[in-house]
Amino acid sequence: MTTTATQQEILTGTGLHAWEQNIAQATAIFEKYSDEDLLLPIAPGKNRVIYLLGHLTAVHDRMIPLLGLGERLYPQLDEPFLSNPDDVAFLPDAAELRECWNKVNGRLTERFRNWTTEDWLSRHEAVSPEDFAKEPHRNKFGVVLNRTRHLAYHLGQLVLLRK
Amino acid sequence: MTTTATQQEILTGTGLHAWEQNIAQATAIFEKYSDEDLLLPIAPGKNRVIYLLGHLTAVHDRMIPLLGLGERLYPQLDEPFLSNPDDVAFLPDAAELRECWNKVNGRLTERFRNWTTEDWLSRHEAVSPEDFAKEPHRNKFGVVLNRTRHLAYHLGQLVLLRK
Repeated sequence: MTTTATQQEILTGTGLHAWEQNIAQATAIFEKYSDEDLLLPIAPGKNRVIYLLGHLTAVHDRMIPLLGLGERLYPQLDEPFLSNPDDVAFLPDAAELRECWNKVNGRLTERFRNWTTEDWLSRHEAVSPEDFAKEPHRNKFGVVLNRTRHLAYHLGQLVLLRK
Repeated sequence: MTTTATQQEILTGTGLHAWEQNIAQATAIFEKYSDEDLLLPIAPGKNRVIYLLGHLTAVHDRMIPLLGLGERLYPQLDEPFLSNPDDVAFLPDAAELRECWNKVNGRLTERFRNWTTEDWLSRHEAVSPEDFAKEPHRNKFGVVLNRTRHLAYHLGQLVLLRK
């Protein structure tokens, strides 16, 4: 960011920075955990780490069409990680999930970095043009801030397992 | 927000909305818990709810001088809730802490609602004018987004106690 950035660019850049920081923090946590660690619950009787990895990946994958960035990469993640609670009898493929996590976030972040102010302020796909005319804050910037908070929420849970 | 809002106002309004949503969510959780509930740990061996209430209040109280909004209201919260880990032998006054939480957030939110774009984009007190000239994203908007994420992080922990 240079000193010639517009006010809008500084504001959207601050939001993008928050997103990137949380993605980096979560990725570092997942990488620190072995595949066996992923099968541990974050606290007794609570979700396993691997469920949160799949859940966050599915939520971020859904951002791709929501933000007008194309088709989803991994719609098959919804059923085990969004439509259903964690099931300890289910053993997802850890290596595959780790790859999905990195691919989805890489795709999103790359696009965000190239967005103009108009892109950030444009309508997301879950709001109608009529509603958006009345509620201009239901824009793509709001979606990214919201998902950044959602990620922070689960980060607070993931660190409970810290040894 | 009206359709005549500037791009800057929409962006800062989106950030303010995120802050207000998380404050409301946390306040609802704290109010739902009885004074006895506050003494429970969020998970075995982890922080008590009352420690997180004090911790979040202290962090938000420190935002007042950081954002150039005057003197802190409750500097005495730092020692038990920031400088030291949770100590189950320490029994803070629940009613007093609940009041501090509401007062601090009320003060901050009221001021945020009246900020202009220039206020949001201005330097916070922990960055020097020289550094800020080179790094304009180290502004007050960034502080509020950061603390909103910090709150979300602990919200993810507070809900683990949900019955």
